[in-house]
Amino acid sequence: MPVPSHILDPPFNIVRCSHAVLDVVNLNASREFYERTIGLHVEDRNDQAIYLRGSEELQHHSLVLRKATEPACNRLGFKVGDEGDLDKAASFFSENGIVHTFAERPFQGRTLQFSDPFGFEVELYASMEKRPHLLRRYDLYRGAHPQRLDHFNVFAAEVQDTLDFYARLGFRLTEYAEEDGPQGRIAAAWLHRKGNVHDFALTNGKGPRLHHFAYWVPGAMNILHLCDVMASSGYLENIERGPGRHGISNAFFLYVRDPDGHRLELYTSDYFTGDHDHAPMRWSLKDPRRQTLWGAPAPRSWFEQGSPFPGQAVREPQFVADVTVTD
Amino acid sequence: MPVPSHILDPPFNIVRCSHAVLDVVNLNASREFYERTIGLHVEDRNDQAIYLRGSEELQHHSLVLRKATEPACNRLGFKVGDEGDLDKAASFFSENGIVHTFAERPFQGRTLQFSDPFGFEVELYASMEKRPHLLRRYDLYRGAHPQRLDHFNVFAAEVQDTLDFYARLGFRLTEYAEEDGPQGRIAAAWLHRKGNVHDFALTNGKGPRLHHFAYWVPGAMNILHLCDVMASSGYLENIERGPGRHGISNAFFLYVRDPDGHRLELYTSDYFTGDHDHAPMRWSLKDPRRQTLWGAPAPRSWFEQGSPFPGQAVREPQFVADVTVTD
Amino acid sequence: MPVPSHILDPPFNIVRCSHAVLDVVNLNASREFYERTIGLHVEDRNDQAIYLRGSEELQHHSLVLRKATEPACNRLGFKVGDEGDLDKAASFFSENGIVHTFAERPFQGRTLQFSDPFGFEVELYASMEKRPHLLRRYDLYRGAHPQRLDHFNVFAAEVQDTLDFYARLGFRLTEYAEEDGPQGRIAAAWLHRKGNVHDFALTNGKGPRLHHFAYWVPGAMNILHLCDVMASSGYLENIERGPGRHGISNAFFLYVRDPDGHRLELYTSDYFTGDHDHAPMRWSLKDPRRQTLWGAPAPRSWFEQGSPFPGQAVREPQFVADVTVTD
Amino acid sequence: MPVPSHILDPPFNIVRCSHAVLDVVNLNASREFYERTIGLHVEDRNDQAIYLRGSEELQHHSLVLRKATEPACNRLGFKVGDEGDLDKAASFFSENGIVHTFAERPFQGRTLQFSDPFGFEVELYASMEKRPHLLRRYDLYRGAHPQRLDHFNVFAAEVQDTLDFYARLGFRLTEYAEEDGPQGRIAAAWLHRKGNVHDFALTNGKGPRLHHFAYWVPGAMNILHLCDVMASSGYLENIERGPGRHGISNAFFLYVRDPDGHRLELYTSDYFTGDHDHAPMRWSLKDPRRQTLWGAPAPRSWFEQGSPFPGQAVREPQFVADVTVTD
Repeated sequence: MPVPSHILDPPFNIVRCSHAVLDVVNLNASREFYERTIGLHVEDRNDQAIYLRGSEELQHHSLVLRKATEPACNRLGFKVGDEGDLDKAASFFSENGIVHTFAERPFQGRTLQFSDPFGFEVELYASMEKRPHLLRRYDLYRGAHPQRLDHFNVFAAEVQDTLDFYARLGFRLTEYAEEDGPQGRIAAAWLHRKGNVHDFALTNGKGPRLHHFAYWVPGAMNILHLCDVMASSGYLENIERGPGRHGISNAFFLYVRDPDGHRLELYTSDYFTGDHDHAPMRWSLKDPRRQTLWGAPAPRSWFEQGSPFPGQAVREPQFVADVTVTD
Repeated sequence: MPVPSHILDPPFNIVRCSHAVLDVVNLNASREFYERTIGLHVEDRNDQAIYLRGSEELQHHSLVLRKATEPACNRLGFKVGDEGDLDKAASFFSENGIVHTFAERPFQGRTLQFSDPFGFEVELYASMEKRPHLLRRYDLYRGAHPQRLDHFNVFAAEVQDTLDFYARLGFRLTEYAEEDGPQGRIAAAWLHRKGNVHDFALTNGKGPRLHHFAYWVPGAMNILHLCDVMASSGYLENIERGPGRHGISNAFFLYVRDPDGHRLELYTSDYFTGDHDHAPMRWSLKDPRRQTLWGAPAPRSWFEQGSPFPGQAVREPQFVADVTVTD
Repeated sequence: MPVPSHILDPPFNIVRCSHAVLDVVNLNASREFYERTIGLHVEDRNDQAIYLRGSEELQHHSLVLRKATEPACNRLGFKVGDEGDLDKAASFFSENGIVHTFAERPFQGRTLQFSDPFGFEVELYASMEKRPHLLRRYDLYRGAHPQRLDHFNVFAAEVQDTLDFYARLGFRLTEYAEEDGPQGRIAAAWLHRKGNVHDFALTNGKGPRLHHFAYWVPGAMNILHLCDVMASSGYLENIERGPGRHGISNAFFLYVRDPDGHRLELYTSDYFTGDHDHAPMRWSLKDPRRQTLWGAPAPRSWFEQGSPFPGQAVREPQFVADVTVTD
Repeated sequence: MPVPSHILDPPFNIVRCSHAVLDVVNLNASREFYERTIGLHVEDRNDQAIYLRGSEELQHHSLVLRKATEPACNRLGFKVGDEGDLDKAASFFSENGIVHTFAERPFQGRTLQFSDPFGFEVELYASMEKRPHLLRRYDLYRGAHPQRLDHFNVFAAEVQDTLDFYARLGFRLTEYAEEDGPQGRIAAAWLHRKGNVHDFALTNGKGPRLHHFAYWVPGAMNILHLCDVMASSGYLENIERGPGRHGISNAFFLYVRDPDGHRLELYTSDYFTGDHDHAPMRWSLKDPRRQTLWGAPAPRSWFEQGSPFPGQAVREPQFVADVTVTD
């Protein structure tokens, strides 16, 4: 089997994906989009950054928009179990030659930032400032009613190596798309820590780049309402794909682009994956239900465009799969 | 059969129920409720009145809130086919000894106001000022997303006589609740002009009083969302009954009380009744599915409380039905 | 204004669209599709035909599937007010040189069949056998939970003339798509009798052909569930367009093809149009929101394919509009 | 703080709640209810038992119905990480004087059964036979479309002691209801292992008894549809409470009773709780939003009735709380 088995005793404990840090060129335009249209809650702001979160999130932010001259995915954030895990992570990175540094980050304190061997910029922290959740503030409802950050999906130029690296950090495979035949290569992989389909997904393509980040919403009607709102408020062109249902993950989905072109997925209805004997599900690249159980085909932009990481050169993928496979 | 057959050639043409005029003691409190919580759109306002409408309504208003010292149902408005119908109506009222008068009403022009023989204050008009509809302004969505006024429901002290009067005006019976046995009296009746279950419903009880007025919403999720919003924004006590489904009309419903105690129903999913051979459906008073196909029983207040008409004495009903029957 | 005003005193009273009669090559395959997947109820069947209806329909059938050697739209059925209207219709057709004949049709009795001047095969009747409605039989729920037939949409080679003919029969215009400029021709028209957006719609194209017939469903979730069911049960390829929202009519929609290629729309959330002063809404052909407020573009097949009427030659349209316009 | 802190290094690893084993008097009646009305899938059956599961569950069963002469909750099942955890559990129980025994159970193999100190009958296992999930078999959809078992809720006569015991096994507190004042006692507690609000909840009351078990459904519309189906198919009286929304857990809920009186909750929309620094949320017993953010009050039966465990005497609670508190 070409799929690495998960590592039950990882070197340190990543609990889940936590926050995205995006570089945007116009803070006001981004705020208008994320707060008034998508429905995230602005928790803090200054001239340089806006901090937002979903309605159930107790942490200060799950999305940071930073003023910049060029759009980029500045950093992907994951939460670890406790402060000790940060030290274990630093040791592990030192032993394995991974560039890393500790920094103090606003609202999240001691933060361990590293560049993984493939150029993805990641940061780890143990405890962020807390805020009361907004689950019962239905009077603040807007847009798609996003509840929590669910996952990141990236274009990786070296899918198998990237998968091996994150499996070693304790990420467990739930679904994967593979070429048929004895030499079949993995073209996409969904990896989790928190117990649903994914915290982090990898897609064969020009990388390192962010394909999308996703928020979980309570139900499909929230997604249809967002389509109506975007069509009403001048964001029709920002709807890129969907609504529809993925075969992979069983999720009902919508993909939209923000004013800088960063891609956001609204996502609902996947399943529990936390059993120790949970077996990854294989999809043939030739099965069209993988990407789209039903719904219109994804447009070209969806397969090709993504957000680069600042200072990281984008490389061609190691191979071209038989079929385009991003999901 | 105790049910009057409909009159296909009524003396004048009422098209549908059009608007309610309610007396309220605090315009700001009422506006807060109807605009921010229920989700109606304020089209005009001054020191004495606020005019609101639903998202699909092309007419200037379907709800008028008038500043007053006592809460009351000031008037129920119906739309007729054209100006000629107003003259035919005046002639008919003159011939039948119905008190009536023409008045100029803001935004709706020439208006024929009358007191029916049972004390209900009604007004007719042919053409109101028009406004562009707001159906595609999903960015203005609030509360239950009310689309259009659907019906009025009143407590009538003389149900059979009131039914006969409105049948003579062309209202057609769609459903009715009746005592069992050869002498069974009608205890409630649903009457329409526009082609769905009702424009006007009559319930045996202390009358004349308004039981409720209802707005049609696109689907059940809009009603659940309103419950969440009311629980979040300090209006929990204003939810009086529901959500649930009526046997009568098949509608999914919620009843709420406004700051003056006026009762509003949010309503969806009834059926078409415009065929000439459409037969009224009879319900036995003993059939509990009539009122509540499923859902918690209605509270006492729902059977007893209603909005009086100014200057009209409230009379005891002509009979007490075997079972409480308002719906 | 190029739009004909409606005729309030038509020569006879058509109440609404009532039923489609479709020729199909395999009754079992069609039954499997309409009963088990779409969710219509089979009311009667024999070796030659299957009769189906929606859950709220009191009439015996709103869809007749007839065994035939070639797929076709056999006939479109409309209901009139009463038997006298059939006689008035026959007189009108005689006076205007419209080919017509009376026939006895199973379950619907005396039926007036005619070929309109453009080749559409239509039948009128006053009273069909009744059946109890199935609204409260939620235990029989399948597929999209279709409640009632809502409308027909046809390709007309001569849109303006066809529109004029049906306007003379009392159909009233609610929305239309038109070329810009002083000589702008109407490219599509939505016409009603029953008080919502349409009973009958005309689209510029090779005609006479049926573009689709539509059933009204309670809400958008019923349509999403049908997508899931079709993707699960081998009908994925039969989903042709949607889900999405039309600008025209504001409806949330899905278009599917049956085993013979006949096109069915599932439809919800339009608006009331029964006022005498209801003004038709104009759309420029250049406004893309007309067809798709949001959602993927319609595929080529949707603009080009339709069901012919038996024995009626299909003609090229009188003009080619600047933009493809079917809706 | 009266709330025990969680134990991050429990003596063995319970992953989640897994299955309920219920004694029922009529297997056919129970199957009719759970399969055709609720919508669970029958995976196996014989003369003595029926095995059912939800659509996303890869395990053979999450509900076992056993033929018996008296209704009872036979056993509550939890899944552990691996076979080694069963041995660690047996050691722990031996050291702590907990009665336990290993048994071979059909489809789930080696199973460790124990009676906890309060009389709850529990069983642990590591690996059950697997079946393909049914997530994409939307054509099999029935009732509420239950996806997975979510939690158990029990009446405990000794809430604090029971809470301490399960906290020692690694269950972590997410929400709790407490008397006000310095001596306030905990009256209800929600405990999880899998990362959402609960796997196991305890309510002050006559115990040991099962209050309910719950299945997670994709959205609120699935619950409304179940109400419609139950009202249509003769199970109206089996709807006990709801639909409504809990303050605790934020869940949209419905409680129904099966033919033996066992209580089942249909449940959707809670939140993620897997962070190490996740703090339990306290509710005052005097806060009515705790139980019902909105919705009709729970009936008396809901506070009083539950399923006993065979052979376990039911004891009075150690104290009577100021307010009835089950949730």
